[in-house]
Amino acid sequence: MYLLRVNMHTGSISKEPVEEDLIYLGGRGLSSKLIARDVPAHIEPLGNNNKLILAPGLLTGTSVPSSGRLSIGAKSPLTGTIKESNVGGTAGQRLARFGIKAIIIEEKPVDNSWYVLHVNSEKIELLPADYLAGKGNYDTAKELRKRYGDKVSIVSIGPAGESCFSAATVAVTNIEGNSSRHAGRGGMGAVMGSKQLKAIIVAKPDSTASLAPQQPERYKKAIKRFALALKSHPTTGKVLPTYGTTTLVKMVNELGALPTRNYSSGQFERAEEISGDTFLNLISQRGGRTGHACHPGCVIKCSNVFNSSEGEYVTSGLEYETIGMLGANCGISSLDVIAKADRLCDDLGLDTVETGAAIGIAMEAGILNFGDGEAMLSLIREVGKGTIMGRLLGHGSVITGKVLGVNRVPAVKGQSMAAYDPRTLKGVGVTYATSPMGADHTGGNGLGGDVDPLKPEGQIEYSIKFQEAAAYFDSLGLCWFTRAPILGDLTLVTEIANSLFGTDWGPEDIVNIGKMVMRFEKDFNKRAGFNESHDRLPEFMLTEKNRPHETVFDVSAPEMAKLFSKNT
Amino acid sequence: MYLLRVNMHTGSISKEPVEEDLIYLGGRGLSSKLIARDVPAHIEPLGNNNKLILAPGLLTGTSVPSSGRLSIGAKSPLTGTIKESNVGGTAGQRLARFGIKAIIIEEKPVDNSWYVLHVNSEKIELLPADYLAGKGNYDTAKELRKRYGDKVSIVSIGPAGESCFSAATVAVTNIEGNSSRHAGRGGMGAVMGSKQLKAIIVAKPDSTASLAPQQPERYKKAIKRFALALKSHPTTGKVLPTYGTTTLVKMVNELGALPTRNYSSGQFERAEEISGDTFLNLISQRGGRTGHACHPGCVIKCSNVFNSSEGEYVTSGLEYETIGMLGANCGISSLDVIAKADRLCDDLGLDTVETGAAIGIAMEAGILNFGDGEAMLSLIREVGKGTIMGRLLGHGSVITGKVLGVNRVPAVKGQSMAAYDPRTLKGVGVTYATSPMGADHTGGNGLGGDVDPLKPEGQIEYSIKFQEAAAYFDSLGLCWFTRAPILGDLTLVTEIANSLFGTDWGPEDIVNIGKMVMRFEKDFNKRAGFNESHDRLPEFMLTEKNRPHETVFDVSAPEMAKLFSKNT
Repeated sequence: MYLLRVNMHTGSISKEPVEEDLIYLGGRGLSSKLIARDVPAHIEPLGNNNKLILAPGLLTGTSVPSSGRLSIGAKSPLTGTIKESNVGGTAGQRLARFGIKAIIIEEKPVDNSWYVLHVNSEKIELLPADYLAGKGNYDTAKELRKRYGDKVSIVSIGPAGESCFSAATVAVTNIEGNSSRHAGRGGMGAVMGSKQLKAIIVAKPDSTASLAPQQPERYKKAIKRFALALKSHPTTGKVLPTYGTTTLVKMVNELGALPTRNYSSGQFERAEEISGDTFLNLISQRGGRTGHACHPGCVIKCSNVFNSSEGEYVTSGLEYETIGMLGANCGISSLDVIAKADRLCDDLGLDTVETGAAIGIAMEAGILNFGDGEAMLSLIREVGKGTIMGRLLGHGSVITGKVLGVNRVPAVKGQSMAAYDPRTLKGVGVTYATSPMGADHTGGNGLGGDVDPLKPEGQIEYSIKFQEAAAYFDSLGLCWFTRAPILGDLTLVTEIANSLFGTDWGPEDIVNIGKMVMRFEKDFNKRAGFNESHDRLPEFMLTEKNRPHETVFDVSAPEMAKLFSKNT
Repeated sequence: MYLLRVNMHTGSISKEPVEEDLIYLGGRGLSSKLIARDVPAHIEPLGNNNKLILAPGLLTGTSVPSSGRLSIGAKSPLTGTIKESNVGGTAGQRLARFGIKAIIIEEKPVDNSWYVLHVNSEKIELLPADYLAGKGNYDTAKELRKRYGDKVSIVSIGPAGESCFSAATVAVTNIEGNSSRHAGRGGMGAVMGSKQLKAIIVAKPDSTASLAPQQPERYKKAIKRFALALKSHPTTGKVLPTYGTTTLVKMVNELGALPTRNYSSGQFERAEEISGDTFLNLISQRGGRTGHACHPGCVIKCSNVFNSSEGEYVTSGLEYETIGMLGANCGISSLDVIAKADRLCDDLGLDTVETGAAIGIAMEAGILNFGDGEAMLSLIREVGKGTIMGRLLGHGSVITGKVLGVNRVPAVKGQSMAAYDPRTLKGVGVTYATSPMGADHTGGNGLGGDVDPLKPEGQIEYSIKFQEAAAYFDSLGLCWFTRAPILGDLTLVTEIANSLFGTDWGPEDIVNIGKMVMRFEKDFNKRAGFNESHDRLPEFMLTEKNRPHETVFDVSAPEMAKLFSKNT
């Protein structure tokens, strides 16, 4: 495998050997290592010196079930920290099967032209693409399929990324070619936009596996055992294939952690209307789908296809966090409105979490009313039009709150929280506060477990465990949902890794990957000026009691600082 | 003397004795000490827990020439650091003569009503003042004089402060009652607005001195000697009384440090049209004034009154920084437009430096054209109307740049630089980078001296010296211009202080006040999450060469960190 270095200034594209210390890194581990090592920590995220890294996970491209994640990393324009955001869809597996360990996008073109990077088995080239300027992700993918054939995978940015908005995503097409999978958090789309790279076109590789296993029989067995474990666990075998993450609406609402009307309550009185059951009913009435895979080889299939009442495709992969933030947090109880908003965000290339938080703030500021779905949809459309209000929204909740004069902003280090109120789910709150990537649910969100989510005790240890786990799942390229069986039996992973690589890893080696990756990240952040003082939730979460539990976030900041510094 | 504590939540007003360790603190020293000691460093600047401190300097209220400064301090909503901004005008002396060592404004009212604080010899009271809501500073002062008599001094905020905009100032009336003196930097007006305090009305005290000197004869002699030193120094005796600070336009332009069109050049081809000579000509043709004092007892009289071509009052105290930032930096060469913009900013309660920087950015973004004076004036008016564009501007250059997609933002720690390009004046650049208060010219701006401003060598020591000096001048309540004679002979100050207080200070004791004050401030900032990583100029100043000298800012950040950590 090799590193692909693309210099947007000179136009040079080079294949470089993988240094020895990078061999067992993949995904987030590799992107964070490369950024921490090669990007000076003080640089301007949208300037010439940032690098955008796209790295398939260590197992991505193999036949390991649900291992198709692609990590996208850079210094974040949203948080100023190191950032990695990973995504399903079909591109990650393909890049790995082309032998690409990571793509490193450097510098900026001299002109303001747009480019695409075309990756296929014959060659890899940068091509001018001004014909795509201003196009949404769906149309971009359509146009590129017209030019490069039906089978290509597309990694692209929408108008939000082109405008370098801090909440811009990178979209990846799913099996059907829809741009519905997004590396959503941290503004990776803005960094791609700053490089004037509109899309990466990935042909279908001839090879069907990135690596040949060292011990084929043992590997085959390990894969089978893992697939069975996923199939037989109630979460990955039943709940997720049936409901996807929409099952969380009811559960989180009952816990009292569903952000409602800009985090002014943890319960939404109309939660039933946006629940998994309602969702499922609509889907079955309208010919949509659940049990939908975002990439080949996923056995969980948590994705879905949501159609309009006329039976026409609206969006795919509608997630709990989107329903929570664009729904309850905005006082919206119509799944049709939420699905339309999701499609708009996907097309513009806009993080639904950040956007939902920003709209909740605009609603609190009186720009539009809580619950007004049509006003919400037109507000999102303004992002594409580049109006000042649209630009605010495109830069996320902190900027929106600052400019509109709202101090109740649910964010840490510039990034919005994701549909889990930390006053009720205090372990998630610790993750929001201390994650190297701002208030990111993907930084180590774990519901359940044996810690009472309402009490401060034990939350720090709980968060550390989940953050380290997220770091190694994201590095291996395993979908975070596979944790359902894995966290109880890490030999599911070591058996696969050892038979594949010929290593002799024990469970602690897997955990150590997570610890190491977090060290890379925290080291970068420290050099960029972050320290324990920044590991705090916003003041209103510490002082304003949340319904229904009448609790504030009360895990002690010095205690967090102490335990985390001990741990890293 | 006593501390006056005003709690806006309970409405309580209490006089408190001055603790022993506060006795020799005044102005910035006192405000920074109180904030560092009593305000938790992590609090939200516009939240309930910030405190606004108004403290006359240690010598303010005495007969010491040009000692009438009033310090206004808080945790800044613009920078997130501790902040002090000081101002002339008549209120500082009066508060001191009422025996008030500092006013501490705490918490917020339960309702959204506006209040005024009325200070007179009979009593001190908080009074409802919704009749002032939305009024500009000039009208506010007029209305309050109608109600409280012609002789009152007014400390007030305009619509920008009411809206809690981060670039909002606190205005103080001058001798004629015009609200033309402003504590401009760091958004102190926003903090006052967050407390719902529209104004402080200060009656004329019976006493004419805040303190009786311990050694009257020696004191009288020391005062005379100081006045003579000011009168006989060319800067304070001649240049400033004649031109005010407008003399700097030509000088800074010749040095190549006059920010032009959003810092894209250090020389403005039409600098002559906004120079001190042109200014003086207009003033003499139109019946304006120079040699105008902002408070009684000033012997320098650097202020001015600028009239329209019809001979009508437009503004007063038009400063170099305003001409530089609203003029050259916006490509504007009309002193009439600049004076109107200054008046608008004074009335809205908006920092002219921050506003000029933000407009330069809006011009670079294409919202209006460089040099379009009428468009600039209407843009400033939008701040008062509260449009989204006006809100952007009201929050300063960093927010404006972020939202409009301009990366060339001349700011440090959220605050704009003030009309001295640090690529040419590298000592000022070190001060911008390392001051505890963001890129603030008042943090220790010193032109001239024996260090070549274009070379990196010696700039750090130069900046440290001026920053410490600024800290003791601001604490003593001495106008920064009095440094002209004082920096060469600190006994001018020690003689005054020793005869007044009965102390036995040497010059090093005065310098130590500056060192101590900076320690209070850096300690607060450290607890708020700032460290040497934040002591940096924006990337474009390090990479983009400035005309005419073709230089970048090249004082090494690690070197700055090293010398400053040694020093504090």
